[in-house]
Amino acid sequence: MQNKVSLPVIKRLPKYYRYLSDMHKNGVVKVSSSELAKIMGTTASQVRQDFNCFGGFGQQGIGYHVDVLLREITNLLFSEKKLDTILIGTGRLGRAISGYLTAEAKGYQLIAAFDKNPEEIGRQLSGVDILDIADLESFCKEHHPEVAVLCIPRQSAQELAPSLVALGIKGYWNFSHYDLSVVYDGITVENVHLGDSLISLGYRVRNN
Amino acid sequence: MQNKVSLPVIKRLPKYYRYLSDMHKNGVVKVSSSELAKIMGTTASQVRQDFNCFGGFGQQGIGYHVDVLLREITNLLFSEKKLDTILIGTGRLGRAISGYLTAEAKGYQLIAAFDKNPEEIGRQLSGVDILDIADLESFCKEHHPEVAVLCIPRQSAQELAPSLVALGIKGYWNFSHYDLSVVYDGITVENVHLGDSLISLGYRVRNN
Repeated sequence: MQNKVSLPVIKRLPKYYRYLSDMHKNGVVKVSSSELAKIMGTTASQVRQDFNCFGGFGQQGIGYHVDVLLREITNLLFSEKKLDTILIGTGRLGRAISGYLTAEAKGYQLIAAFDKNPEEIGRQLSGVDILDIADLESFCKEHHPEVAVLCIPRQSAQELAPSLVALGIKGYWNFSHYDLSVVYDGITVENVHLGDSLISLGYRVRNN
Repeated sequence: MQNKVSLPVIKRLPKYYRYLSDMHKNGVVKVSSSELAKIMGTTASQVRQDFNCFGGFGQQGIGYHVDVLLREITNLLFSEKKLDTILIGTGRLGRAISGYLTAEAKGYQLIAAFDKNPEEIGRQLSGVDILDIADLESFCKEHHPEVAVLCIPRQSAQELAPSLVALGIKGYWNFSHYDLSVVYDGITVENVHLGDSLISLGYRVRNN
């Protein structure tokens, strides 16, 4: 059933997870689809449809048990096995993101960082070695990372993408402006455009 | 006309800006709405509709001049006057984001950072002083920042929001999980949920 779940539903799951974690922490025992809908900014029908993608999680009319719902969604979203992850680009953004990844993010294990700058290579970043990007292939063939975090410019990402995909990397947390998912099939990409969100914000602040 | 522009259109503008900048750099002189649509992952009709929100930018049938289009969109998105910005929360994420904001982002001027941790207060961050959050009100009354970057937990953001809004801060680059826009009118919020995007990515990598 899970491979039929649509991307918008998947994108809402972390939000359900956050809200249900808060409720559970605050001792809330039951919650109706309309209460959840209100918090989520959607409709009760949408909430029920979302949960039906995963088999339901509860009975309509009597509400959901917060602990059951939270456990089910936690099981969906997290696995005991962490995803082996490499970070590419150890500039200012890469350093920032590596810190976030190792300190705040569940489910990922940073195993190496890569850069092409000789001054960076050989240093440590968030507890891992910074390796030469020229050694990417041999590293991947030995360690089989599943996820790559791209903190490099658009052009570099475009040049590197064929190798990364060919080396079997399935997941991309992509801070570059090159969207791999447009060109490559069978991979999963989460694009984060920090710059775009700042540009939109500035426009809206000036024009509101 | 500009105050009628819908949020989805505004959110696409930075992407147009990026693609047009690339084209201009690569010496492309003219571009049709269908070529733009292909790059943007949308339809030619959508592209024309988007540009019509701002008066058109060109004539249907003969394509758009890249330089004209880029100049118009640049004028829309950027202003010579930078937005005075404060950052709240100087933990790991705050430090990362302040570096990005001062080094990479156009249009914003970081003027102060705030924290409640006595060990942080008095230090410098990305060239500005870290001030006591208790001094937020007096600072804002003197300096009138327009934008706040929130790098604090959900609970802290919720507690601080009424003051920030009352002190006249109009724009929020929000990394916390408390969405101010649900509660407060007349403000502009860009939510960035780094954690959510990592959770979605992990789910999709495991289930694809």
